Amino acid sequence: MERYDIAIIGTGPAGLEAAITATVRNKKIVLFGSKLLSNKMQVVDHPIKNYLGLPEITGKEMAAAFQKQLDILGIEVTEKKVTVVYAMGDYYSMQLSDGEYAEAETVILATGVVAGKPYPGEEAYLGRGVSYCATCDAPLYRQKTVAVIGGGADEEAEADFLGEVCEKVYYLPLYKDEPHFTHDNIVVVREKPVEIKGAMKVNELVTDQNSYTVDGVFILRAAQFPGQLVPGLEAEGNAVKVDLQMRTNLPGLFAAGDIAGQPYQYIKAAGQGNVAALSAVSYIDEKKRAR
Amino acid sequence: MERYDIAIIGTGPAGLEAAITATVRNKKIVLFGSKLLSNKMQVVDHPIKNYLGLPEITGKEMAAAFQKQLDILGIEVTEKKVTVVYAMGDYYSMQLSDGEYAEAETVILATGVVAGKPYPGEEAYLGRGVSYCATCDAPLYRQKTVAVIGGGADEEAEADFLGEVCEKVYYLPLYKDEPHFTHDNIVVVREKPVEIKGAMKVNELVTDQNSYTVDGVFILRAAQFPGQLVPGLEAEGNAVKVDLQMRTNLPGLFAAGDIAGQPYQYIKAAGQGNVAALSAVSYIDEKKRAR
Repeated sequence: MERYDIAIIGTGPAGLEAAITATVRNKKIVLFGSKLLSNKMQVVDHPIKNYLGLPEITGKEMAAAFQKQLDILGIEVTEKKVTVVYAMGDYYSMQLSDGEYAEAETVILATGVVAGKPYPGEEAYLGRGVSYCATCDAPLYRQKTVAVIGGGADEEAEADFLGEVCEKVYYLPLYKDEPHFTHDNIVVVREKPVEIKGAMKVNELVTDQNSYTVDGVFILRAAQFPGQLVPGLEAEGNAVKVDLQMRTNLPGLFAAGDIAGQPYQYIKAAGQGNVAALSAVSYIDEKKRAR
Repeated sequence: MERYDIAIIGTGPAGLEAAITATVRNKKIVLFGSKLLSNKMQVVDHPIKNYLGLPEITGKEMAAAFQKQLDILGIEVTEKKVTVVYAMGDYYSMQLSDGEYAEAETVILATGVVAGKPYPGEEAYLGRGVSYCATCDAPLYRQKTVAVIGGGADEEAEADFLGEVCEKVYYLPLYKDEPHFTHDNIVVVREKPVEIKGAMKVNELVTDQNSYTVDGVFILRAAQFPGQLVPGLEAEGNAVKVDLQMRTNLPGLFAAGDIAGQPYQYIKAAGQGNVAALSAVSYIDEKKRAR
């Protein structure tokens, strides 16, 4: 398998700046994210006033400026979601939402921050009925009943795939738009998920109004809690613990932007992406010299 | 005396972003620096490739983009050098190069980094013959002989003023351009300063080729060592010690950009300027609520 120097997860300002800096420093990178770059950025309509160098710019214009720079440097976005990052000793292995794997010497987390907290039961039943990746785990639920908590419209394709495999799918959208599916065994449930219950394995999803008997619960968020994305990663609440060089507690793993803590600001995220990339470059170069 | 909410020292990317963010947050600021913004930026001829949002831009173009944003927000640069910052308990007092003072609730240091180390004797004789401010201390050297170590051509005016007051001035430029003075008692010495010597007070400047009997040595650098600029400020070498929120060991005093440590990068500096400004805003608002 091709092993990248640096895998960058996230296409907000932190991930993009990291990709640009790493590319200028001639590293072989892979940039996981969305071709729209950042959902948050796409919906900002009021002008952003405090990004130095881009006065009075809307989110869409900012995304366009960033895209132009990616094009100049020949940087492509790989539209896959990374579901888990495993520390393998001297490299990292990433499980992707299409069931494939990728490997890199170093990883920069720039996924943004997840609002809120895990659902009660989510962490207790992870791997025992709770899953973050439909493509990866669908085969375990053939002819069974599952619930899908959908963080955004781009998760509908994953849920649709579950509709193909499972007997029945309850889909709980966390957003307002009407979901669209090709399978009619998918029931849209406009209720708020409250708790995941079970015995040895998950058997129930409780909402603010009802309770559903299910064999599994898929939680499809735009971003994941740090400790779920990278087992063993030290975090404080929703934020990865980093030092000024954007190093985490795992050697070769860096974090930048909202996932590295407040303030949630574009230029702060970009600055940290730059630092994370240069720290990754130093880490790789030192490892090479030590060989 | 008018007291500012936030005094920002330095007009590189860190200081400018801090000024922009503080202004957007409605704080009363003063921005000390140069109308050219950053000397370093003005001389960068090769395109800068890794400032997210401004692809393939020269330093001059970058400075122009930044200036445009200052104009939109009505931010003016105060062209004065801050020679010392004193922590006064619940505010800061700044001595300026024109002999005036300014006061602010909080201070953001964004002066850039000084290359090298203090000269041997510089710290020992500070206040006893070593000075960083010609305008402030010239009267002490009336009819005496002084040496001036000039870090850049913009220090020549200060040296010229010493020529008016002193008997004799040795001017040691650390740059290549030919200095210009209106007083002919200023002797340009193309030698490298090596050590400052004395007994109770300074009496000698040693260079790599000669030794000069002097009553004082003025060291005029573009930036100062952190501990000299702010007595009591904790530093590691040339870098001010900061946390992730850009706080220093002195409450209400923040640092951002090169002075806060490596890497020396424009976008990293801007990101830190943003964080420093938001930390200063929080500090001020918390103090107000506590009253």
